Amino acid sequence: MNGANALVETLTDQGVEVCFANPGTSEMHFLAALENPRIKAVLCLFEGVATGAADGWARMRGKPASTLLHLGPGLANGLANIHNARRASVPMVNVVGEHSKHHLAFDPPLMSDIEGLARPLSHWVRTAAGSGSIAADTAEAVHAAASHPGRISTLILPGDASWGEAGEVKRYPKPERQVRAPSPDKVEAAARVLHSGEPTLVILAGNACTGPALELAGKLKTISGCRIATQFFTRRIERGAGRVTLERIPYSVAPALKFLDGFKHIITVETGEPVAFFAYPDQPSLLKPDGCQVHELVARDEDCLAGLQMLLDAIGGGNAVAALQPLADRTTPTGALNPISVAQALCAAMPEHCILVDESLTTGRESMGYTEGALPHDTIQNMGGSIGYSPPVATGASLACMDRRTICMVGDGSAMYTIQALWTQAREGLPVTTIIFANNTYNILKMEYSNMKAGPAPGPAALSMIDIDRPTIDWRAMAKAMGVPSVQVETAEDFTKAIVASCRAEGPMLIEVKLY
Amino acid sequence: MNGANALVETLTDQGVEVCFANPGTSEMHFLAALENPRIKAVLCLFEGVATGAADGWARMRGKPASTLLHLGPGLANGLANIHNARRASVPMVNVVGEHSKHHLAFDPPLMSDIEGLARPLSHWVRTAAGSGSIAADTAEAVHAAASHPGRISTLILPGDASWGEAGEVKRYPKPERQVRAPSPDKVEAAARVLHSGEPTLVILAGNACTGPALELAGKLKTISGCRIATQFFTRRIERGAGRVTLERIPYSVAPALKFLDGFKHIITVETGEPVAFFAYPDQPSLLKPDGCQVHELVARDEDCLAGLQMLLDAIGGGNAVAALQPLADRTTPTGALNPISVAQALCAAMPEHCILVDESLTTGRESMGYTEGALPHDTIQNMGGSIGYSPPVATGASLACMDRRTICMVGDGSAMYTIQALWTQAREGLPVTTIIFANNTYNILKMEYSNMKAGPAPGPAALSMIDIDRPTIDWRAMAKAMGVPSVQVETAEDFTKAIVASCRAEGPMLIEVKLY
Repeated sequence: MNGANALVETLTDQGVEVCFANPGTSEMHFLAALENPRIKAVLCLFEGVATGAADGWARMRGKPASTLLHLGPGLANGLANIHNARRASVPMVNVVGEHSKHHLAFDPPLMSDIEGLARPLSHWVRTAAGSGSIAADTAEAVHAAASHPGRISTLILPGDASWGEAGEVKRYPKPERQVRAPSPDKVEAAARVLHSGEPTLVILAGNACTGPALELAGKLKTISGCRIATQFFTRRIERGAGRVTLERIPYSVAPALKFLDGFKHIITVETGEPVAFFAYPDQPSLLKPDGCQVHELVARDEDCLAGLQMLLDAIGGGNAVAALQPLADRTTPTGALNPISVAQALCAAMPEHCILVDESLTTGRESMGYTEGALPHDTIQNMGGSIGYSPPVATGASLACMDRRTICMVGDGSAMYTIQALWTQAREGLPVTTIIFANNTYNILKMEYSNMKAGPAPGPAALSMIDIDRPTIDWRAMAKAMGVPSVQVETAEDFTKAIVASCRAEGPMLIEVKLY
Repeated sequence: MNGANALVETLTDQGVEVCFANPGTSEMHFLAALENPRIKAVLCLFEGVATGAADGWARMRGKPASTLLHLGPGLANGLANIHNARRASVPMVNVVGEHSKHHLAFDPPLMSDIEGLARPLSHWVRTAAGSGSIAADTAEAVHAAASHPGRISTLILPGDASWGEAGEVKRYPKPERQVRAPSPDKVEAAARVLHSGEPTLVILAGNACTGPALELAGKLKTISGCRIATQFFTRRIERGAGRVTLERIPYSVAPALKFLDGFKHIITVETGEPVAFFAYPDQPSLLKPDGCQVHELVARDEDCLAGLQMLLDAIGGGNAVAALQPLADRTTPTGALNPISVAQALCAAMPEHCILVDESLTTGRESMGYTEGALPHDTIQNMGGSIGYSPPVATGASLACMDRRTICMVGDGSAMYTIQALWTQAREGLPVTTIIFANNTYNILKMEYSNMKAGPAPGPAALSMIDIDRPTIDWRAMAKAMGVPSVQVETAEDFTKAIVASCRAEGPMLIEVKLY
């Protein structure tokens, strides 16, 4: 078989099931290799959709998806969502086409330093030396990506390595995730903190926000009286009625300082201490109060399940029972749409086991609070802060979980970055409900303008860089352009009904929430 | 004044008139500084639109535009069109927001190695050390960008350098483009070649394809009998009736080999010898015939006007008269739309002094040939090969020349990468006619699949990565979504009429050319 076939065969041996692709001329042999029935190829009309979809897929499946990107510029177009995935410790294997080595000597138009572009946002980068080593390279790329806590691998595939003969291909075993437990010293220190009875916040991230680890965190809370929370953004949280509820550290500096005020200790699990998203003049970067001590219980590359169990054992909490979230009042809200009625509508309408991908910075700001007691669901958030994240991530998450409804909440400004994701949703018939909060402005920036002390209020030139109301975007037309049915709503009742109706649909649906 | 004001003030002193912006929180002081009436700020809803627009603006004005991008991911989103600009030697000054230095120590979510991301595709990269040095940094960035033949500068602007006090700002003079003439040795060698009477091709690029240099090339042809041509893609060509016509080396390897067959000499002006766009199995990378000698007359960083004049003097061609292109038959074609009738329609309908931005790989393939004798116009082509180039470049070119009609020809697949450009065209009321060739496929890849010998024809999985027909994109809805009027055409008559009508419109227009 040729190098491209060896690559795809090894990907599938390693458990990679899907490739989100935006191909070009140099990847034609790879396209031929995608006839392999063990991998599903999904076409994306922009590379940022491909990398975001790979992120969403991996968040739901806990193992890497692959992407196919076309040379340096194709990789560049995918980098913003690679950044987001990297920040969330999401595994990803990027395959980037490249000219044949002999051709590079002639400086052809599409030549660029692909390794140089890949390195700042990849943990593992390699240009395949040739078709003979491609299987080994691929196995190493997948192993690197799948290693705990999830890494970015970028394998650069020259044309000649793709079309050259690979010979007999060695079979490499699937990666096994080996995670070490935290040291007993760290557990002992955390236990002392909890024994002290001083106000303590345990901040959970990564694998600690799902499954049995989350349950253990709930027991810790019961037995020790600590509070348990996440950062403002988390890779994935299992939440809703019947689950352990985690508080959320606010986004803005002032409310975050207020939230953290009074804590003497912060214990971290797969995360660090709370840091402001941006630097503001005269505001702190670190958000903990004076005198508060930070104790790392579980590092990002350690085993949170072991760590939390060790801590629970150390404080004698083996029989503790976690408090579980009761079902909220799910009365349908009425009247005008605002952040609260939006959140109430979501809580009322979200179906069981839905996946909520949240990129609604302002209109959706109440949603996490109000949906604590919704039917059990998962949330996915953007840990990297690069916008244009949610439609692609929702696309991949939905493909990973076709039996669940994925709800993507996104502001109009954010949605425009990678709106091409709608087309892939239509093509694949994905059960995604995209909710566009159409307020015709980068609303967050209006707030940040004064937070930044850039002036009392934006002047006309600055405002013209913030408001996106000339022209207003016609979201129903946008959905139609890419084959997605849509509806526009202006009241809380209609919004609730629209979500419910979308969840009964077969494929994707776009709901434009018209805000005034 | 603060650092942001010093930056914008220095940009304007240096002759930078426009900033294509996609701002975020860290750039709020820069937004405030954009109230400066000497700079026009243009909002783009995706960073690739901003960098592409800066490219188009600079191609028409011959001096750099600026962009404003939001941290590493914002830069990343702009890189593909920076690559294209770099390959075309187009000057550009990118300003990239960054966290304050003290904040970076805490590894906030949006942190990345911005310098590392910028370096592979920038000629000049610097992170501003502080507000005190920002004016000097900015002046150096513009000088670097504006130096011949046009370079990419990336200035990284930390928040504290933006909001800190810059003191009295020194005024820096505008960059003066200093270009050295080629050495007499090179001129002499080229003169010997032309005197020899052996078949010679002069390949022109950069500044040699416009203005007086193009006229000199025409005289060279008259006096020496050489042929004069461009590479397949060129930054900008002044062409049409009354101009010196340049031949064009074909894109595909086989016709390019045929075109070049028989030449004993190639003389290059601001370019290199012809190279295949991609590497193909068993096909050459270098396209010149065996025994053909390549002679560099003018390097990319040298003065082509001086070089061509020196050569003309050396061969005694001072009084030669260049043959000028006669006006073509501009009869309106009728019947079905195909590459030839599309090209004839363009030739008939293109208004005088229009700007033709060409990213039509397959359906538009006859256009350059058939429009040789159209009314005088400029063409702009993509020298970097990263698709998603033309709607942004057309946006910037149009803003640079509001009194001219810009016609952007683009395939449906290519248009989807940076389609957000339509919104900026509507917002600014730009006289851009976007022609979408809607064949519902990445047609070029179908050809390349067999050129690459990936197989006799794409199988079902490969085809599903090439055809974009499920769903078909509704281009009139896409235009409506972003406030651009549109029309769909299916015949050559209607296509011609639609172009003519669009040229009478005030602002943008989209023409969907429905292909079957």
